[in-house]
Amino acid sequence: MYVIGERINGMYTDIKSAIQTKDKGPVQHRAKEQEKSGAYALDINVGPATTDKEGAMVWLIEAVREVTNIPLSVDTAKYEAMKAGLKAVGKSAIMNSAKGDEKSLDIYLPLAREHDASIIILCIDEKGVPSNIEGRLEIAMRALAKAMEHEIDISKIIIDPIILPVNVAQAQPANVLQAIREIRQLSDPSPHMVIGLSNLSQKCSNPKLINRTFLSMCIGNGLDMVIADSTDRELMETVITSELLMNKTIYCDSFLEAYFSK
Amino acid sequence: MYVIGERINGMYTDIKSAIQTKDKGPVQHRAKEQEKSGAYALDINVGPATTDKEGAMVWLIEAVREVTNIPLSVDTAKYEAMKAGLKAVGKSAIMNSAKGDEKSLDIYLPLAREHDASIIILCIDEKGVPSNIEGRLEIAMRALAKAMEHEIDISKIIIDPIILPVNVAQAQPANVLQAIREIRQLSDPSPHMVIGLSNLSQKCSNPKLINRTFLSMCIGNGLDMVIADSTDRELMETVITSELLMNKTIYCDSFLEAYFSK
Repeated sequence: MYVIGERINGMYTDIKSAIQTKDKGPVQHRAKEQEKSGAYALDINVGPATTDKEGAMVWLIEAVREVTNIPLSVDTAKYEAMKAGLKAVGKSAIMNSAKGDEKSLDIYLPLAREHDASIIILCIDEKGVPSNIEGRLEIAMRALAKAMEHEIDISKIIIDPIILPVNVAQAQPANVLQAIREIRQLSDPSPHMVIGLSNLSQKCSNPKLINRTFLSMCIGNGLDMVIADSTDRELMETVITSELLMNKTIYCDSFLEAYFSK
Repeated sequence: MYVIGERINGMYTDIKSAIQTKDKGPVQHRAKEQEKSGAYALDINVGPATTDKEGAMVWLIEAVREVTNIPLSVDTAKYEAMKAGLKAVGKSAIMNSAKGDEKSLDIYLPLAREHDASIIILCIDEKGVPSNIEGRLEIAMRALAKAMEHEIDISKIIIDPIILPVNVAQAQPANVLQAIREIRQLSDPSPHMVIGLSNLSQKCSNPKLINRTFLSMCIGNGLDMVIADSTDRELMETVITSELLMNKTIYCDSFLEAYFSK
């Protein structure tokens, strides 16, 4: 399970104020904390901190790069900020994200190719987030076809089926589980599958319990990437145990300690 | 999720000694404790306490019946003890279990019909536990065909794909997940699916973490029954949250409390 740490995000007050005051301290603290707790990559999102998305994105990336060399995910809906972010990251960038309509794919896939970046493609198109499984499959098929057209290796394609808050769209989690399973079967090799986990439990009670329970259900249906809070110890224990049960790691009595001591 | 409490079992020292000294106290204590913690039914197993399986089974059932009216699962491999147990339980018994070979099915299915009991059929035949998914599907198909032959409603059929300890058969949990999914699709309505959860983590470190993680993965693939320790609060929270995420119960902020106050 490729865990992308979600914590470098201007939605959080410490990061927002760090961006506004150009104080690298909190950003670098969170970056190190996430890497130490098991994140393989870090998501970088300016959030609502400033209107200068492009400048803030580059500043965040450079601040994080001073303390870690793990892959970075450039998380923005602004094309110019995405371009600037990719340039700042250099090698091993993840684009987060492109929408799954034809027009967006024809703009973002060439950018991914230019930077040799992995790219998260959302199951969203002109009509919004599909309410069913078929709609998600349709977008994923389009994304895979477009990736081939733009000569991008499927190993670089990461499909996000979009998880909505369970308290407002309760039929969706089960649809997402099935979508994960079916999208993985659309091509061989399969595209990667990711979800932005925290969205599931927004404004819910027991958000951590909801998140970790759903994450194991997703892993049991083929999810291989997640954007989540890696400093949530119980979440990471669930990830490690789920992977063990999917036979992705070898059982030993100290399987938890083995992971965290890496 | 139909949780069958596993605690009335002669493998546990308190129940073993209760059977040997004919002391109803510990048996009734465990029965009430399990019902209170959320079990819908109780599994009754004499275990290695005595060679008089038949007498001990009837004694256990009668002791439990004095304190609860919830369904009881007669858990024995001995045909005579099964018959005596079913008679003692009366209505709403679950037979646990029959093997999935033709000969066993032809003996146990008529017994289920005679007592109007639900019946757990194990994915085990002359060749043992299948090492793959196909072998499990083959046994489940045979069980469903035999159920029709013996005119037993599919709603009474519960297939157990058999989970082995993850530390000795690490490829099996993922196979079991897929088997659950595929066996559910063999007929409409689907047969019920159950696992004996504790077996998964026998002699493992972190057994409770392993159990609850796998249980949510199973629920996310269609499992609807489990034999487990309902007094494990974190396990039950995982069950409740998984059902919520599968849209089986309606979200409310107090979803945990709502369940436990039932």
